[in-house]
Amino acid sequence: MKKLHILKIGGNIIDDPTQLNRFIQHFSEINELKILIHGGGKLATELAHKLGIKQTLIEGRRITDSETLNITVMVYVGLINKTIVAKLQAHNNNAIGFCGADGNLIKSKKRENAEIDYGYVGDIIEHGIDVKQFEQLLETSKIPVISPITHDGKGNLLNTNADTMASKIAIALSSFYDVHLTYCFEKNGVLLDVENDESFIPILKKADYFNLKKEHTISKGMIPKLDNAFSAIENGAKQVTICHAKNISKQMENMRGTQLLKG
Amino acid sequence: MKKLHILKIGGNIIDDPTQLNRFIQHFSEINELKILIHGGGKLATELAHKLGIKQTLIEGRRITDSETLNITVMVYVGLINKTIVAKLQAHNNNAIGFCGADGNLIKSKKRENAEIDYGYVGDIIEHGIDVKQFEQLLETSKIPVISPITHDGKGNLLNTNADTMASKIAIALSSFYDVHLTYCFEKNGVLLDVENDESFIPILKKADYFNLKKEHTISKGMIPKLDNAFSAIENGAKQVTICHAKNISKQMENMRGTQLLKG
Repeated sequence: MKKLHILKIGGNIIDDPTQLNRFIQHFSEINELKILIHGGGKLATELAHKLGIKQTLIEGRRITDSETLNITVMVYVGLINKTIVAKLQAHNNNAIGFCGADGNLIKSKKRENAEIDYGYVGDIIEHGIDVKQFEQLLETSKIPVISPITHDGKGNLLNTNADTMASKIAIALSSFYDVHLTYCFEKNGVLLDVENDESFIPILKKADYFNLKKEHTISKGMIPKLDNAFSAIENGAKQVTICHAKNISKQMENMRGTQLLKG
Repeated sequence: MKKLHILKIGGNIIDDPTQLNRFIQHFSEINELKILIHGGGKLATELAHKLGIKQTLIEGRRITDSETLNITVMVYVGLINKTIVAKLQAHNNNAIGFCGADGNLIKSKKRENAEIDYGYVGDIIEHGIDVKQFEQLLETSKIPVISPITHDGKGNLLNTNADTMASKIAIALSSFYDVHLTYCFEKNGVLLDVENDESFIPILKKADYFNLKKEHTISKGMIPKLDNAFSAIENGAKQVTICHAKNISKQMENMRGTQLLKG
């Protein structure tokens, strides 16, 4: 099977033009099949603030009312996605931007939760990822750039967590490719001491992750990301890495960062 | 050659949810190859106003500074395009949204004008439309939904007039398809009396258009649209119609509106 690199970049990289440009330069040099998934960043929150739209967070998760959804769509699918696509095109990478509604690429279902109403938030449904379309794009030398907005097939756009999306796409495509999934963010990897960027764990096994979670060594914000990352390695991805966006290399090998291992 | 319908909808249709939903219903029922191109509408202007970004118009054309460009990208490519795509998906139309940067579909060049600096405005370059990609999309039963943002290949997104875009796409694709181009807006067609919606001209020849222009019978705002429309009919399009969005039919034939004729 061919190797396929799936990279996810988070908000901190997107918010900083210098970091974003450096990442795009490095990403553009990867000479194998690749997909980029991006998150949101501060822009949406800033825009909501400027427009006087109140943002509600419950347990660190944003509640997506319809006004917030519109802002998210404007910023994520409009500004961020197309800025990245245009920059990649300038590096002769034939990038093509998608949200889940485009070509029905990623279908989700509005989250139903008895306790908390998250609003217009969608969880990707089983077989909701159009694997064949991804294959066609990759085989025609396109580079899909995916924003974290999906749709429910009933006309509604839904906000979907970008880390989860990256994990699910990696799993869905692992039947056809050797998938190497890399979460790029603003830290060197999974840190033992959140204050010390050099304290990253080079190799993290699932069992050790459970222990570190129990001891509260791993910061709370990292837990959903790591759950997604472990889900990918346990369900078909060949390699899952968590690293600083600046540390990705052309060959995407021996990167400074945290490598996850099953078991 | 197969028939291909290219429809363009303007701001007044997009701004009115009832009209937009009716249009999408009708458009979704067209059972032949089709492309939708959409303009902007008031949303971008309203957002700019709310954010305190001043809008400058020179001769009815918006000057696109970098802040205005960002708003345009957010509203046109983000909100409007994806709202339309999600709605079409709900009608089992496999719509896929594009701006010109996506897959390098439409390439433009920043307008250079000694007299007026229009800002981030792009004119589509010769051979700037990727005809082959349009063909691949249409042949795989996709329905391209195009927003009026292009790119220059150097990393810049540019604002492009949607009427011109529709005309240029129609011309570019007319070597491969029998192109039927329809400009849908909020009037019944080209009016002899701007106050009377029943005064539309059923058939308008180029020579008559020149005379009506000379007599100032045709409203000033219609002239750029008509120039684009005549350019299409003179350069390959089989049929060009200007009509009210509500008057399009499944068969796209015998529509109430203005049909353009060469000569």
